[in-house]
Amino acid sequence: MERSPKVVLSNKRFAVTYSLEGTKQQCLLKARHICFEQTVEFPEDLIPAGDIKNHIIGRIEDFQKTGQNRFQAEISFAVETAGAEFTQLLNVIFGNSSLKPGIKVEKTGLPAKILDLFTGPRFGQSGLRKIVRAPKRPLICTALKPMGLSAAQLAEQAYRFALGGIDIIKDDHGLADQPFCSFEERAARCAEAVKKANRKTGGHSVYMPNITASADRVLERAHYAKENGAGALLIAPGLTGPDTLRILTQEQKIDLPVISHPAFWGSFVTSSQSGLSHYFLYGQLSRLAGADAVIYPHSGGRFAFSKQECMDIARGCNDKLGKLKKIFPMPGGGMTEDKLSEMFGMYGRDFILLIGGELHRHGADLTKNSRRLLEMLEKV
Amino acid sequence: MERSPKVVLSNKRFAVTYSLEGTKQQCLLKARHICFEQTVEFPEDLIPAGDIKNHIIGRIEDFQKTGQNRFQAEISFAVETAGAEFTQLLNVIFGNSSLKPGIKVEKTGLPAKILDLFTGPRFGQSGLRKIVRAPKRPLICTALKPMGLSAAQLAEQAYRFALGGIDIIKDDHGLADQPFCSFEERAARCAEAVKKANRKTGGHSVYMPNITASADRVLERAHYAKENGAGALLIAPGLTGPDTLRILTQEQKIDLPVISHPAFWGSFVTSSQSGLSHYFLYGQLSRLAGADAVIYPHSGGRFAFSKQECMDIARGCNDKLGKLKKIFPMPGGGMTEDKLSEMFGMYGRDFILLIGGELHRHGADLTKNSRRLLEMLEKV
Repeated sequence: MERSPKVVLSNKRFAVTYSLEGTKQQCLLKARHICFEQTVEFPEDLIPAGDIKNHIIGRIEDFQKTGQNRFQAEISFAVETAGAEFTQLLNVIFGNSSLKPGIKVEKTGLPAKILDLFTGPRFGQSGLRKIVRAPKRPLICTALKPMGLSAAQLAEQAYRFALGGIDIIKDDHGLADQPFCSFEERAARCAEAVKKANRKTGGHSVYMPNITASADRVLERAHYAKENGAGALLIAPGLTGPDTLRILTQEQKIDLPVISHPAFWGSFVTSSQSGLSHYFLYGQLSRLAGADAVIYPHSGGRFAFSKQECMDIARGCNDKLGKLKKIFPMPGGGMTEDKLSEMFGMYGRDFILLIGGELHRHGADLTKNSRRLLEMLEKV
Repeated sequence: MERSPKVVLSNKRFAVTYSLEGTKQQCLLKARHICFEQTVEFPEDLIPAGDIKNHIIGRIEDFQKTGQNRFQAEISFAVETAGAEFTQLLNVIFGNSSLKPGIKVEKTGLPAKILDLFTGPRFGQSGLRKIVRAPKRPLICTALKPMGLSAAQLAEQAYRFALGGIDIIKDDHGLADQPFCSFEERAARCAEAVKKANRKTGGHSVYMPNITASADRVLERAHYAKENGAGALLIAPGLTGPDTLRILTQEQKIDLPVISHPAFWGSFVTSSQSGLSHYFLYGQLSRLAGADAVIYPHSGGRFAFSKQECMDIARGCNDKLGKLKKIFPMPGGGMTEDKLSEMFGMYGRDFILLIGGELHRHGADLTKNSRRLLEMLEKV
C-alpha cells in the first residue's frame, strides 16, 4: 500500500486495492459502488449527513489507469467496519463485490489496529528451518500417495522418504478419513515411521498429516496428530474456511507448523479479471490466517499459474506485513527435477519444493531417489 | 443425474457433471485428468493394477458436446473416496480441479449412501411457511440497515417493519460485532422489538440476526440469538466455510431456520467457464449443508446474475435431492416493486422476496411501506 501510507498510518482506516475492468467512466462507477456495497448497502441519496456518510462509507483514495480498459482503485474503509473478526474483515474487503465480475482484490493495506488482531504464522520461514535443521537450502516436501493405499503401506513410504532425508513428508491432500485408510491409524503409523527413520539417520524429518475435516473435528485431529508425534499439520482452508486455519494456528496447545493447501480455493484466482489476486490469497490472507507455508501449483506443472503469478505469491509471503513472520512459498503440482534451476531463479533459496509422483519415477528405491534430490538441492 | 442412474443407484459411486472448455481432444484429456487429479494425483503409468486402478480413480461415464468448444463429462468416483465428511466430498468434487481454468462443476448425483450422511434443511419451504403463517404467497424479507446505526436505531426499524407484517427481518450482512453496534445488544433489542410488534398485531414476523463470525463463535452466537428470541439465523458460508453451516443446521438445540448469504462466495460463479454452477452452489451444496433458503442477487438488480442463472438456482432448490427438503430461493440485491411480476413468472409463489433499501424510498413510514408491499404480494 505504498501509495497511501497516510490512510493506513492514521490507524482509523484500512485500504484495499481493486483492479477494475471497463472504461474509465465504468470503472469510476464500479469504484463508487464498492464504497457502498461493502459497507452500507443503501441508496446514496437516502443516507443522512453525519458519521455514516463521512466515515463508514468506503472512500476512493486513489484511482489510476493500469492498462487497456483496466484501472486500479484504492478504497479505504473505517477500521470499525471490520469489528475484531477475520470473517468480517474479509467481508468488508470482498463480501458482496465477489458477486460482481470485473472486480479483483489486488492487496490490502492494514494499520496496526487491525494487524494486532492477528498473531500470524507461529514459525514462519526461520522457525521451519530450525525444526528441520536446514538453515540455508530450500526445504523439500513430498506426499504420501496414491489414495487407496493402506495406512501401513503409506507408513512404509514415509519411512523410506525419511531415511532419504526429505524434510517434510505430508499426506496427499486427498487422504482424509476413509475406510481404506483411517485418519487415526495413518497419522499414528506414519509419525512413528518417520521417527524410526530419524532415530536411524539422526535426521529431523517431520510427518505432516492432513487434518482437513468437518469444522468441529479439525482441532480434535490436530490434537491427536500432535499427541501421536506429527511434526506439522496440513489443512485446506478453502474447504474448512480460512478462519479455521487462523484458530488452529492460534491454539496454544497445538504448537506445530501449519501449511495450507489450495484445494477448492482455485476459483478465486482462475480469472484475471475477478476474484482475488495470487498475492492477496496465497500471501496476505494466508499469512493473516497464520499459515507457515502455502502450497500452490508452480508454473509449467499440471496447472495454469503463470510465472508472474508464482512470483506474486512469493512476494506476498515475503513483503512486510506488520510484525507477521515471512512464510515459505511452496510450489508443487507435477514438479520435476528439471524445474529446479528455474525455481532457484524465481524464489532464491527461500522456498519449499513440493515434489510428489516424480520421486517414484526414478525406480522403486524411494530412499535413494530422495537422497539424490536432496544432494541436487544442496549443490546449488 | 438423469443420464446415469445406474452409477448412482449402485450405491458404490457418485457422479459429478463437469463442463469443459476446449476442442474435443482437449476436453477428453481434461476429463481424464480430472479422474486422476481428484483422486490419486499420481502418474497413470506408475499405478499398479488392482483396486486403486479399477475403483479409486475417477471414471468417465459420459461425454457429450454441449456447444461450440464446450463439452460435458460425467465422472464417477468411488463412494469411499469421500469418507463420511462434507469437506472431503467437496474435495473430491472440485479440490484441485478448482485450480484449473475451463472446468466447471454443473451438478452432482449422489447415492443414498452419501445423502444419508446429511440431515439437510430442518425446515425447508413448508417449515418456513408454517413459522410465518404464510401458506401460499411468496414470503418477504427485509434488511436492517445501513451499517453505522446503533442497536437501538436498528431495533426501532425492526419494530416498524414487523408492524407492517414483513415475514423475516434480517440484519444486513455487513452487521457483525462492531463498536457502533455489538452483536449481543443488537440481537437482543431487535428480537424484542419484533416480538413487541407481533404482540400488537397478532402477527408472526421473525427477526434473523447475522451470526457470521469467527469459526469458534458461530455456535455461541446462535445460542445467544435463540435464547434472546431470534426466529431465524443468517450466515455467510463463503466466510465461515460451508461445513460450519452444516454443523449449525444439525445442532439439536438450535432449532431455528438458517438462511445462507452469498458474501465472499461470488468468485465461484462469476466465470461461465470455471468454478461452480449456480445450480450446484446455491442449490445442491447449500441444501446438503442444510440451508432453508439461499440469498442471491436477482437478475437486473445491482449484480450480474442472468435470468437463466436465477432459474437454475430455483431448480437447485426444488429438484429432487434424496429425502432433503425443498428450500426457498431468495432473490435480492437492489430489488424494486416493478420486478415483482417478472419474479412471479420465474419462481411462481415459492420464493422469498428480499427487498432492502427500496422499502425506505417510499417515505419515512416503514410500516406503511411494508404493508403496501405485502398487499401487492397477496393480490397476485
